[in-house]
Amino acid sequence: MTYDPDNLFAKMVRGEIPCVKVYEDNNTLSFMDIFPQSRGHTLVIPKQADIDLLHTDDEVVAQTMCITKKIARAVDAAIKPEGIMIAQFNREAAGQTVFHLHFHIIPRYEGQALNRHGGGSPADTQELENLAEEIRKHLD
Amino acid sequence: MTYDPDNLFAKMVRGEIPCVKVYEDNNTLSFMDIFPQSRGHTLVIPKQADIDLLHTDDEVVAQTMCITKKIARAVDAAIKPEGIMIAQFNREAAGQTVFHLHFHIIPRYEGQALNRHGGGSPADTQELENLAEEIRKHLD
Repeated sequence: MTYDPDNLFAKMVRGEIPCVKVYEDNNTLSFMDIFPQSRGHTLVIPKQADIDLLHTDDEVVAQTMCITKKIARAVDAAIKPEGIMIAQFNREAAGQTVFHLHFHIIPRYEGQALNRHGGGSPADTQELENLAEEIRKHLD
Repeated sequence: MTYDPDNLFAKMVRGEIPCVKVYEDNNTLSFMDIFPQSRGHTLVIPKQADIDLLHTDDEVVAQTMCITKKIARAVDAAIKPEGIMIAQFNREAAGQTVFHLHFHIIPRYEGQALNRHGGGSPADTQELENLAEEIRKHLD
């Protein structure tokens, strides 16, 4: 599979479609998942055109993962879930739906199952904006 | 929660209990999960005493994730699953069962659900040794 430069996340990086932004630097973008598997589900992506983890150079892997940790800590401090899962899917059979490398930060709450990945109806944008604002306040 | 130096993975790092080793360097250890969620389920851990991703310094996060990529590529080349999931759990509510940072590399096969995390009966050691040998052959 070759990288499609018109995938959803590439368009967000270029600002062609909106996202509820949590964090941005020269190499990395983080935003709220619009089909959250749980309250506070946040994504972290490199800006570079990488299809998945297996095909990304080490420098970008390292940068993106350190930012994922930083955002996960902020999600944890802001939302105070009982646990946090980090997930990354390579290829459709593993659950990948957008073919630009992304790390999921998924808060877990006691006794609460996850919503289906990429399914259901989109979250309320204002609610996502409020969550993003809380998370941003807790960035180190 | 404080780090327990007698957790299962700390004992493996110290060589006090055996593991089916895939890779080792000064900072990192990788071995087969003895309760695999799918065929080829492999773990990657830092040797440093870190409880989870949220409490690990960036240098170790970066190192461990780059090795996770390296091992995931080798698992992919050796076993050729349809997909590969990377997962990392922080705290019990997220599914963490051993309180030493570890990344799961979980091959996914079309139409095949995952075994329960940490459940069921342990895998056959010889089968794990055979898988580890195949994976080691494909390390870059």
